[in-house]
Amino acid sequence: MTNLNLISESKSFGGKLGFYSHPSSTCNGEMRFAVYQPPQATQKSVPVLYFLSGLTCTEENFMAKSGAQRYAAEYGLMLVAPDTSPRNTGIAGEDDEWDFGTGAGFYVDATEQPWHQHYQMYSYIVQELPALIATNFPAQTDKQGIFGHSMGGHGALVCALRNPQLYKSVSAFAPIVAPMRCPWGQKAFSRYLGSNQESWRLYDASELIKQVGYHSPILIDQGTADKFLAEQLLPEVFEQACAAVNQPLNLRYQQGYDHSYYFIASFIEDHIRYHA
Amino acid sequence: MTNLNLISESKSFGGKLGFYSHPSSTCNGEMRFAVYQPPQATQKSVPVLYFLSGLTCTEENFMAKSGAQRYAAEYGLMLVAPDTSPRNTGIAGEDDEWDFGTGAGFYVDATEQPWHQHYQMYSYIVQELPALIATNFPAQTDKQGIFGHSMGGHGALVCALRNPQLYKSVSAFAPIVAPMRCPWGQKAFSRYLGSNQESWRLYDASELIKQVGYHSPILIDQGTADKFLAEQLLPEVFEQACAAVNQPLNLRYQQGYDHSYYFIASFIEDHIRYHA
Repeated sequence: MTNLNLISESKSFGGKLGFYSHPSSTCNGEMRFAVYQPPQATQKSVPVLYFLSGLTCTEENFMAKSGAQRYAAEYGLMLVAPDTSPRNTGIAGEDDEWDFGTGAGFYVDATEQPWHQHYQMYSYIVQELPALIATNFPAQTDKQGIFGHSMGGHGALVCALRNPQLYKSVSAFAPIVAPMRCPWGQKAFSRYLGSNQESWRLYDASELIKQVGYHSPILIDQGTADKFLAEQLLPEVFEQACAAVNQPLNLRYQQGYDHSYYFIASFIEDHIRYHA
Repeated sequence: MTNLNLISESKSFGGKLGFYSHPSSTCNGEMRFAVYQPPQATQKSVPVLYFLSGLTCTEENFMAKSGAQRYAAEYGLMLVAPDTSPRNTGIAGEDDEWDFGTGAGFYVDATEQPWHQHYQMYSYIVQELPALIATNFPAQTDKQGIFGHSMGGHGALVCALRNPQLYKSVSAFAPIVAPMRCPWGQKAFSRYLGSNQESWRLYDASELIKQVGYHSPILIDQGTADKFLAEQLLPEVFEQACAAVNQPLNLRYQQGYDHSYYFIASFIEDHIRYHA
């Protein structure tokens, strides 16, 4: 495999789950990701579904906890889960905060020092990683979808809205849909992107949807017992933005569910089927 | 709830997953466990299925990684996953080894010092925990099953074979079926139970099955790519013991699967259905 280091591999639901590292030119250092190849991938190329994880996660959380492999095997989809940031870059303080730096790349291309040199997660997700997948795995690169959770739901929406030709479908669990208006987003954007909020709009799903729309309905699940709902997630902002431009949105409030992977696992089947 | 401290709770597949701690009289200190109550449990009492985890695990691994809740919700079973040992007992060296002491209680009642005072996992699993469940949850206590993984597969088999009236069914993933003959078991038994190997027989499924049999067929899944298969797990020893006493055993070798929860998740549906 080109430039890929296989860290571990496990058989899962008749398919193959691998964890990889590779030197990333975009992030200027080692990056990690996980790939689940369904049983069908031994016979033919299959569509690819990217999952972007939330704050503090690695490439492992989704594969270990979501239960997605069962449905990826059923529908014949490849799953790709990248890490949530560069790690061990040497940037001073990178590990000091759980919601910024390591584990919190926010899927943006940082323009500010000292993050600029490594924190290029947006370009990594939409360009370098898909190219690597296309080279090394039996992927139908013209059939890509993307989804994610929390910070990764934000990332999935931004990647899809800005690249509708690359992603045929997008969905999210408890996404940060209005990062310009919430503390997590304001903290990350001000330090990765600087104080000029014009540059933030490119990474705010509620701003983007009004500018560019999306070619397909968007599916979002949101738990009503999610402790981050009112302050950080703000689904009503995205709902209003979609309504303003007649963007079809299926925003489902799931009664009593929280922000955890137990919530994700409970509805992962619907999302996999939606993308399939 | 009697003597129970709720640590956290998440909705999962329409049911309720809770993590609890409580003062254990059997283990002479705090113990932890997790309970998944399926949606049906809001209306009536439901059967209970205990899962015993393997070395290094806590009460969380099974609930986070196995995907069992989906099927427990479908079949209306309560799942109970205890921790794998007492913790923070103050015994010198309890945390020093990954395969002995903390996270490695081996589901025995220790007779040797210094473990004797806390490491009473067998009695905890078959007596104290079920009594606690019966008092605090809508459990059909006359309908209990038990299963487990690796060290926990050993524990499940031992608990079921010695208490066939308490457990209507037993199954296991990659269990340690002949602990008297493998390094993990010999290390644990010699230090928890002492040098008299007669006392070990009470905790060795391959010895027990020849003495007492079991009233129902036993289901075991074993991955062929499991790195512990040849040295530690020895399923062929149990298979021969079952054959010798005409004990029905469904030992399934799963081609290419390893020892991880990815293996467990791939076959958990079969086990839940078997117990249901």
